[in-house]
Amino acid sequence: MDSGAWLLFLLSASTIGHLRSEPMLRLPSEKEIPSDYCDSWRLAVETNNAGAWERVPPSCVGFVAEYMSGKRYRRDCDVVGKLSSAFARSVELVGDGRDAWVFDIDETLLSNLPYYQEIGFGFELFNETSFDNWVKLAAAPALPSSFSLYNELQELGFTVFLLTGRSEYQRNATETNLLLSGYKNWERLFLRGSSDQGKPASTYKSEKRAELESEGYRIHGNSGDQWSDLGGYAVAARSFKIPNPMYYIP
Amino acid sequence: MDSGAWLLFLLSASTIGHLRSEPMLRLPSEKEIPSDYCDSWRLAVETNNAGAWERVPPSCVGFVAEYMSGKRYRRDCDVVGKLSSAFARSVELVGDGRDAWVFDIDETLLSNLPYYQEIGFGFELFNETSFDNWVKLAAAPALPSSFSLYNELQELGFTVFLLTGRSEYQRNATETNLLLSGYKNWERLFLRGSSDQGKPASTYKSEKRAELESEGYRIHGNSGDQWSDLGGYAVAARSFKIPNPMYYIP
Repeated sequence: MDSGAWLLFLLSASTIGHLRSEPMLRLPSEKEIPSDYCDSWRLAVETNNAGAWERVPPSCVGFVAEYMSGKRYRRDCDVVGKLSSAFARSVELVGDGRDAWVFDIDETLLSNLPYYQEIGFGFELFNETSFDNWVKLAAAPALPSSFSLYNELQELGFTVFLLTGRSEYQRNATETNLLLSGYKNWERLFLRGSSDQGKPASTYKSEKRAELESEGYRIHGNSGDQWSDLGGYAVAARSFKIPNPMYYIP
Repeated sequence: MDSGAWLLFLLSASTIGHLRSEPMLRLPSEKEIPSDYCDSWRLAVETNNAGAWERVPPSCVGFVAEYMSGKRYRRDCDVVGKLSSAFARSVELVGDGRDAWVFDIDETLLSNLPYYQEIGFGFELFNETSFDNWVKLAAAPALPSSFSLYNELQELGFTVFLLTGRSEYQRNATETNLLLSGYKNWERLFLRGSSDQGKPASTYKSEKRAELESEGYRIHGNSGDQWSDLGGYAVAARSFKIPNPMYYIP
């Protein structure tokens, strides 16, 4: 680049006022997000910038409904699945049965979209009774991108563990739902036992991953829709965040 | 919800074929992303699902150019800034001068958009010579959302540290650029010294944050556009990922 080009550069740098051309956003609370900022709110959720949040901002409920029901959610999930698969294929497996991958269940292996459609896509606060009734139905469909990844991992020789925030009393319904939606041959399904109740998800899930590591498993990959599925300690070599703008679990 | 509603539910669950209505995406390499998946690729970058990548996929260069130049980037940054600010205001400062916030510089405090506009928004591989020439100009404008946050943090009483992957020989140009674009009163500016060369950014930055902690600083917040600004060890209480779909630093 010659000096003339550099000068043009400098001029464009000094006139980069377009970055300021919109008045600065005021965001006093998540309840007052202007609707044209909903996509940015969603990004903040997916990157864990949003921190803890209780419900989808009212101004963004329509946006979330459209996102979840349309092509964007499916495409975003597909890309996560393909990137997970590309990583999995790059792993050199030891082949002793200790090459592990950990999956969360809700909004990861199974989609509760039919349930959340019914209750307005995150607008309502989480209702445990109503969700428990839905779980009992064992009717959640597989998330297609995760289903495809799950099967490929087993073909590649990974040992698959399921680690969910659901509780032991939901074991039957959960296993039934997994089998009905086509999942099989997982090594172990972890649910919250009595001693796990009340723990933050990231603590409970870190403890279970640490158990696996102490048994000699190498956790290469971990798939989940919540940052609390993926962080903490005993984290996987690669963690994959599946989109979920409907709810937040600490 | 009565049993009739549950039945409707079940039916909608069993017919959730729309999740499968598009053929599954094939993504053999980042070089072959269908252009209608570029937004999903960007999300994968922002959530750290993409792992290491060398350049923007050719099919997504136009998408990235439009994203960076238009409203979306500015809005996404604004929301990160406002969420950072909301967190900062929630921190109870001890007030002993050890309440710290760490900022990265490039694409965090300063925007190199004029430079990347010139070289085609990430399509070209990173060219150190050309970027060094740009740095020497000290002409990068402030990222407005970070500028606003930076000033608010100082008003609130945080001690601000700057931690950049730039090298010591760029100290003068970097300080000049920061001052010209309006930043002032940072406590310390860390640049890579001779012993830091060749280290992955996450190692170098973790080491520097650990130094601060050993000096008694409490790192409440950390702002950066790369996951390697934020992860590793001695991580902040809250980390804020600023968007950057143009390049990746391991």
